[in-house]
Amino acid sequence: MSRTILLNKRPVGRPELSDFKFVTEEKPTITTGEVLLRTSYVSVDPYLRGRMSDAKSYAAPFELNKPMSSGIIAEVMESNNSNFKVGDYVSGMLEWKEFQKSTGEGLKVVDTTAVGQSVYLGALGMTGMTAYLGLTEIGKPKKGETIIISGAAGAVGSIVGQIGKILGCRVVGIAGTDEKVNMLKTEFGFDDAINYNTTDNMAEAIATACPDGVDIYFDNVGGAISDAVLFNINKFSRMIICGAIAVYNNTEPAKGVSVQPFLVKNSALMQGFILGNYAAKFPEATQQLATWFKEGKIKATETVVEGFDSIPQAFIGLFDGKNKGKMVVKI
Amino acid sequence: MSRTILLNKRPVGRPELSDFKFVTEEKPTITTGEVLLRTSYVSVDPYLRGRMSDAKSYAAPFELNKPMSSGIIAEVMESNNSNFKVGDYVSGMLEWKEFQKSTGEGLKVVDTTAVGQSVYLGALGMTGMTAYLGLTEIGKPKKGETIIISGAAGAVGSIVGQIGKILGCRVVGIAGTDEKVNMLKTEFGFDDAINYNTTDNMAEAIATACPDGVDIYFDNVGGAISDAVLFNINKFSRMIICGAIAVYNNTEPAKGVSVQPFLVKNSALMQGFILGNYAAKFPEATQQLATWFKEGKIKATETVVEGFDSIPQAFIGLFDGKNKGKMVVKI
Repeated sequence: MSRTILLNKRPVGRPELSDFKFVTEEKPTITTGEVLLRTSYVSVDPYLRGRMSDAKSYAAPFELNKPMSSGIIAEVMESNNSNFKVGDYVSGMLEWKEFQKSTGEGLKVVDTTAVGQSVYLGALGMTGMTAYLGLTEIGKPKKGETIIISGAAGAVGSIVGQIGKILGCRVVGIAGTDEKVNMLKTEFGFDDAINYNTTDNMAEAIATACPDGVDIYFDNVGGAISDAVLFNINKFSRMIICGAIAVYNNTEPAKGVSVQPFLVKNSALMQGFILGNYAAKFPEATQQLATWFKEGKIKATETVVEGFDSIPQAFIGLFDGKNKGKMVVKI
Repeated sequence: MSRTILLNKRPVGRPELSDFKFVTEEKPTITTGEVLLRTSYVSVDPYLRGRMSDAKSYAAPFELNKPMSSGIIAEVMESNNSNFKVGDYVSGMLEWKEFQKSTGEGLKVVDTTAVGQSVYLGALGMTGMTAYLGLTEIGKPKKGETIIISGAAGAVGSIVGQIGKILGCRVVGIAGTDEKVNMLKTEFGFDDAINYNTTDNMAEAIATACPDGVDIYFDNVGGAISDAVLFNINKFSRMIICGAIAVYNNTEPAKGVSVQPFLVKNSALMQGFILGNYAAKFPEATQQLATWFKEGKIKATETVVEGFDSIPQAFIGLFDGKNKGKMVVKI
């Protein structure tokens, strides 16, 4: 038998366990050209919250009573496809199922001899490419510039900061616990970091941590933290809007400081980043990330939750900042 | 004798007549290389409000008890400079004085035989270049796209719309009176226009006027109008933030709908536009605008106020939308 997790209902505000439903099905049988896959690691990501709503967005919404899906690493158990042999590990956008079959379309065999499987969901996967391409394509960092990152201890943020250091920038992170702040400075080489939960005046704290102002803001959270950054941006600054986890669960459009006067005053740019728009650059990004990873210049930090049953809770935990680095579920 | 208008105090909120002070001085005498100028037209522009404050902005603030300045057309009355002869008209950034002297630096002789002097402050001056370069450099319009313009009946907005039509776009304007809405449609060829003062639900009205959504937003006003536009932007839309007259007089940072979730969802771009950053493109812009103007494809509409005494009041009137097209003061 094989279990599957369906979208049971669309969340109103914060997602709850009851938004998901577990069902048990027969393990699938494969025909010509297909492979049978056993899920080994599941990526849970903030952007999935958007797909659980039916509002217009960049990715089609999940359908009610249909399986959830996300980035997954799976082991090939049976193969009728010459591109895949039994024992291979593949990465791809797959469904939240213990076992599933596939034609192999969109799947990529990953080398797990030297690198842990889950790294292909993180630093060497969509997470790493989001960090690299968001920072370089929109942020266009120049040596000596200051980069500030919200959600800095999260999957994308922690990689952005490390890339920023490789490129010769001053890097400042914003995170929600002292433990995370400490991790950013000691493990990831951030120049400074701010705990927004213990800081009264974020705008002032950012000014102190960024004495030359902010040239690039890599924004994963939105909300009040982003408002505070605005007061510190430099002329010609670039703001990469990669996520808005602080407001994903809002039932009404979020409100905050109007960005427009700050953009005019500083000839500043703000641009929404979606990885899928940069597919042409994936090979370059993958290559660069793999090189840096091999050289030890990028560390992959993970929060690993265990068990298929835990996938919904792990996802919900993202909204409480339960993760340091990439949140994955090991099956 | 010659009168001068000084910045008397920095406005708190909406500018008032008492923020300005008139003084009378001797008419200047010129020495080698200088010209004596008599002011004939003065441009009043929303951006001057920013320079009246001492907050950090893109242009240095005006100094207290020093003359105000803006784009001016002046007649050369005396000349010790071989680049200028008596009777020439020049345009440049000059002080709010009836008479002033100049070394000629930054002044450009304008041909007033075929074109009215004040057009060089509007369609063929900074206003036209702002419209052209903001729209083309940030907006990058493609034929068939939809452009929506706030402050559409203003100096810049009315030119943006006409350029949008020349480039084959659907053009929708937002303005504050039925008279202006009518003008946009009948005189300037806008496809549709919305009176925000008589419209309850702006987001819906924009959706109706832009059935294919908004690809480009040329924003001169900020505030609630810009919030409403967000609900209608298309994927990859571009928002040119050229001005924020709705909030220039705020004493606290303006608040509104958070733009970040809309930018992420739509991979959209928002960028502050300051004409001075595009100096390398001025010759191209001037040439193109002059060609279109000569061909009758761009009409210059003006609101002309008379008399040196009226300059402060004309400026203040911008914040009440007193102008249709370019607001100038004829001396």
